[in-house]
Amino acid sequence: MAKVAVLGATGYTGLELIRILYVHPEAEVVFVSSRTHAGERLASVFPELTGLFDVEVHDTDPRAVPRDVDLAFVCLPHKAAMDVVPALLQKGLKVVDLSADFRFRDRAVYEEWYQPHSAPDLLGEAVYGLPEIHREKIASARLVANPGCYPTSVILGLAPLVKKGLINTSTIIASAASGATGAGRGVAQALHFCEVNESFRAYKVAEHRHTPEMEQELSSLAGHGVKITFIPHLAPMLRGIFATIYADLTDNMETRDLETLYEEFYREDRFLRVLKQPALPDTVHSRGTNLVTLGVRVDKRTGRVVVLSTIDNLNRGAAGQAVANMNLMLGMDETRGLDVLPWRP
Amino acid sequence: MAKVAVLGATGYTGLELIRILYVHPEAEVVFVSSRTHAGERLASVFPELTGLFDVEVHDTDPRAVPRDVDLAFVCLPHKAAMDVVPALLQKGLKVVDLSADFRFRDRAVYEEWYQPHSAPDLLGEAVYGLPEIHREKIASARLVANPGCYPTSVILGLAPLVKKGLINTSTIIASAASGATGAGRGVAQALHFCEVNESFRAYKVAEHRHTPEMEQELSSLAGHGVKITFIPHLAPMLRGIFATIYADLTDNMETRDLETLYEEFYREDRFLRVLKQPALPDTVHSRGTNLVTLGVRVDKRTGRVVVLSTIDNLNRGAAGQAVANMNLMLGMDETRGLDVLPWRP
Amino acid sequence: MAKVAVLGATGYTGLELIRILYVHPEAEVVFVSSRTHAGERLASVFPELTGLFDVEVHDTDPRAVPRDVDLAFVCLPHKAAMDVVPALLQKGLKVVDLSADFRFRDRAVYEEWYQPHSAPDLLGEAVYGLPEIHREKIASARLVANPGCYPTSVILGLAPLVKKGLINTSTIIASAASGATGAGRGVAQALHFCEVNESFRAYKVAEHRHTPEMEQELSSLAGHGVKITFIPHLAPMLRGIFATIYADLTDNMETRDLETLYEEFYREDRFLRVLKQPALPDTVHSRGTNLVTLGVRVDKRTGRVVVLSTIDNLNRGAAGQAVANMNLMLGMDETRGLDVLPWRP
Amino acid sequence: MAKVAVLGATGYTGLELIRILYVHPEAEVVFVSSRTHAGERLASVFPELTGLFDVEVHDTDPRAVPRDVDLAFVCLPHKAAMDVVPALLQKGLKVVDLSADFRFRDRAVYEEWYQPHSAPDLLGEAVYGLPEIHREKIASARLVANPGCYPTSVILGLAPLVKKGLINTSTIIASAASGATGAGRGVAQALHFCEVNESFRAYKVAEHRHTPEMEQELSSLAGHGVKITFIPHLAPMLRGIFATIYADLTDNMETRDLETLYEEFYREDRFLRVLKQPALPDTVHSRGTNLVTLGVRVDKRTGRVVVLSTIDNLNRGAAGQAVANMNLMLGMDETRGLDVLPWRP
Repeated sequence: MAKVAVLGATGYTGLELIRILYVHPEAEVVFVSSRTHAGERLASVFPELTGLFDVEVHDTDPRAVPRDVDLAFVCLPHKAAMDVVPALLQKGLKVVDLSADFRFRDRAVYEEWYQPHSAPDLLGEAVYGLPEIHREKIASARLVANPGCYPTSVILGLAPLVKKGLINTSTIIASAASGATGAGRGVAQALHFCEVNESFRAYKVAEHRHTPEMEQELSSLAGHGVKITFIPHLAPMLRGIFATIYADLTDNMETRDLETLYEEFYREDRFLRVLKQPALPDTVHSRGTNLVTLGVRVDKRTGRVVVLSTIDNLNRGAAGQAVANMNLMLGMDETRGLDVLPWRP
Repeated sequence: MAKVAVLGATGYTGLELIRILYVHPEAEVVFVSSRTHAGERLASVFPELTGLFDVEVHDTDPRAVPRDVDLAFVCLPHKAAMDVVPALLQKGLKVVDLSADFRFRDRAVYEEWYQPHSAPDLLGEAVYGLPEIHREKIASARLVANPGCYPTSVILGLAPLVKKGLINTSTIIASAASGATGAGRGVAQALHFCEVNESFRAYKVAEHRHTPEMEQELSSLAGHGVKITFIPHLAPMLRGIFATIYADLTDNMETRDLETLYEEFYREDRFLRVLKQPALPDTVHSRGTNLVTLGVRVDKRTGRVVVLSTIDNLNRGAAGQAVANMNLMLGMDETRGLDVLPWRP
Repeated sequence: MAKVAVLGATGYTGLELIRILYVHPEAEVVFVSSRTHAGERLASVFPELTGLFDVEVHDTDPRAVPRDVDLAFVCLPHKAAMDVVPALLQKGLKVVDLSADFRFRDRAVYEEWYQPHSAPDLLGEAVYGLPEIHREKIASARLVANPGCYPTSVILGLAPLVKKGLINTSTIIASAASGATGAGRGVAQALHFCEVNESFRAYKVAEHRHTPEMEQELSSLAGHGVKITFIPHLAPMLRGIFATIYADLTDNMETRDLETLYEEFYREDRFLRVLKQPALPDTVHSRGTNLVTLGVRVDKRTGRVVVLSTIDNLNRGAAGQAVANMNLMLGMDETRGLDVLPWRP
Repeated sequence: MAKVAVLGATGYTGLELIRILYVHPEAEVVFVSSRTHAGERLASVFPELTGLFDVEVHDTDPRAVPRDVDLAFVCLPHKAAMDVVPALLQKGLKVVDLSADFRFRDRAVYEEWYQPHSAPDLLGEAVYGLPEIHREKIASARLVANPGCYPTSVILGLAPLVKKGLINTSTIIASAASGATGAGRGVAQALHFCEVNESFRAYKVAEHRHTPEMEQELSSLAGHGVKITFIPHLAPMLRGIFATIYADLTDNMETRDLETLYEEFYREDRFLRVLKQPALPDTVHSRGTNLVTLGVRVDKRTGRVVVLSTIDNLNRGAAGQAVANMNLMLGMDETRGLDVLPWRP
């Protein structure tokens, strides 16, 4: 039984981690922390945990993490994450960091989109935690940078096309909608129920920080630099990302051929499913799980391909993928604790 | 590993059963049926099952159920249920019936609220499947009648008060709101998204068929006949029942005393939680689980008690409770496969 | 053309007032204020007003209100309201105050549930602005206290029964659900989209401040003191109050008789509608309007009456009723600017 | 006072027309029809109309329309519309047809995407009812084809760029999300509340019938043939279309320049608003109105422009635009009855 810590346990991602790990047969959460709720009981923050998982909330201090912990999940905002990760590693723990702090191989890119980096020497070591792309490296990593939610959906949606050179990579456009949990638990006028319900809006138009993350991985898959247009939207729902991705095909292809290509590309990947015509992905097909549900269509009239990629932003887009990474890092089966059916309805 | 059948697998309750049993460590679904989708693949009805649980859908015919099945869940409408249950029993299966057909000990009550009963001889044998009230009888039953969703929340909300004689039972009023999954998957104008969203309404005012079911159990607990007023409402959400129950206290009592009383009453019941002041139940505290989350308050100004009882209507109100009953009937631990944390957010 | 001011224009109630008055044929908004947005343009707070009603936001200072304003709507929190109302009156304006500060005839009741009153001499003069009950007094009032949203629905739902002596007033229970706009525009963890959506909960159980307001008016209608149990709930929607009200009938009555009684009681009231069997009220029947939609049912089995009363909490429960009061106070037809059809869907 | 008829009054578009016209100062609805509810009272279909607009529902037969009606709104499905429009015109009425039957100048395009046309001789006469583009022709038309909801948002979003030749028209991609009212009031499994709520999905990927409608108008604005990729999505809300439109700029431009260009292009159009940086459109900015709220951004990194165009699909996308067309056809001010503020919240 692996012992794990969750630093930053009172946000939605931390809570989702606790929910997933509660039923994990080979790992248990032995330490939770929060900067704002230290000293409280976790069930006083989340009353639904009463009688089930009601532990003390510790301060978010690497020194407070017990020595026998095997792995720590860091669910802190960027900047705060890079302040604690080095100390956790030094203590001998493995780390899955859910912030953006260790996602970029190129320090300059991180610093252009975020801020100065205080632990740049770890950037070379950290592995980008997308198992379908970096499974082997993850398995031997000490530090895994868990991908952003949008990048997870977009990179996996495009990987077969980019890797096989079937699209003109200068024409990629990703238009995605997310449920409001993607914005986190912090209060804000724009996240008040009465501002989100019955509303649909774009935000951070062509300036979202997940853009360079997608470009890093797509460039790596393509073997040359790729720049894309990415526009996120907020949909009036709790969970789910729906990415609709557009690109020009380099050759004339049929939808059926692409469906087969996708199936083969992801044959070994148990969380990836390709829905075939006439079925189309819906965010509910992935809800509450680590699954990625894909669809692909050729728009014959314009010579474009349209890829539809859906995930649960809190699960596959954060906590579920983090657990899959933990499984790999600790030598367990990748699907351990994650092989569940979607929540529907 | 117990083998189970789900008859009526293409409604929301059947799907929830399949979802719960998919991770049950001691039971597996080996047969699913549907009257409307016989011959199809289950994943063509529910695409989210693609690659996970994609089995053939059989006709709803007791003869088609394999001989080695241990227990059948019957998720058919009332009337259709009593047409198949006798044959299943005769075949040697244990049965958890999720319809109303075997919930009443008094045939006359059933026939007054429903229709003529075609298997009345089984009414005496069937056990009302509310484990907190009838655990021992369930464990030795061949046929368990799974309670209605509203009765589950109301009976468990009132049981301590009624059993202890602390309220005037002629003053009981239960006002409850349910998410729309409670109405089932069948299409209807009143269940169109545009008729439910941003709408709140009462329905079947003082004439809902769950009323006599509550009265049967409350009368049994009280030791005398009890009649109540019950008004259900439809809330614009997927899952959850919130029952607000009112009654006159026979004596002056404090909220704190009642909280203690409830905790003691349900001390052995691992799915029951009493939230204490200042916490109050919310449907999300039970969402996706078999949990019942209770709160209790004394209105000192009027001498009334107000009980707040929340469940997930599809889970505790149907499939989860059915699995708990299966666990008891097959000699497993009651919480097997059900010990999970609520879905939040 | 009457000139009106809206003090506290950047909350939901202020915005709803502006929306209603924008099409009012005999009144125009000439002054808006806000304590937090003074000095900004209103369209920078509410971008949807761009090009339509984009005025400067003034400080909430009675001295800043132009002298030729006929009437001011005060949309400030209680306490803040009683700090400005006396000065507005002194300046010669008529005032509709939407806070609780002038709703109580008995200062002691206000001070028990709220705080010390700083303008108690106005309590005798202020008229409780429920037109169906106090139409004539409103017409000649200088200061009208606009009723709370829940009291509007509950008092109008019960008035015919209480006035006619048809119920035992010691048995009244009001169980009501409100959309989240009722909680206002201020940010709070409990109002985050992800905490409200897919959630149903009770709050301020048996201690909501609207309780004494209902009791004041019901006592007045009954001719004797009335105490009730009132439990509010939060439903995952924007607008709407659904009040389900229970009481014991003093005599045996039929639903049909009560429907007729209600129709007659409200014959002159153009915003009141009684839906007759088998129709039942839904919050959408009143959405976006000043309408009150009622239903009534006798529960013959228990001798109780159940009244269903629905309003739009922002409109009839606040801004719409305030405009109706303005209409009466300025000698206009009560329905001026308010005779619109509900928003559905 | 103009007299108008609404054929097909029991769908959401018909109801929205009745709601808008109820407050129109120069038009009144004197005849409503429905194929499925003929002979009933309109308030038995829509109880919220009780006491407000409760008229008899007639059969949908052109002969039943009174002779003194000036204009008929035809809210029937395509095919059914072209069966009644010729008779209405022959009777001397003006017609605003809300179906697709008269939107195409080229019969072959209609027949490729829809079906054989039974009144092709009217295609040359019918005017495409987008006032910002065809205002003068509408004013003198006998038959106006009201645009589809998606085309309204996309064509107006692109018109300035296409007309001025600022984009490469072969790179246009429109990704749009709509609320569920866009799918109409008819029941369907896919529109059940429990299938739409908490779900986001694409549908009719690259094969939606609104595509050729957009292409017809964009080609006309461009002066050459234009083909686009259009992908619609269903969002879990009632009203609103949010179109995110992508295209390659032919020259290097700044967001500020485009904002100015859009403002100038639509200077005379009172229902068009351009939100400038940092504000971005949200569907709520147009909700319940005939307004179009636009935003525009240059993605400097890729040389693309992103246009954000929002409307209320039932109002501007159907009934509101139909009333604007009526206003023009009957010589009234275009904004008559439509100059209202958005519904928010």
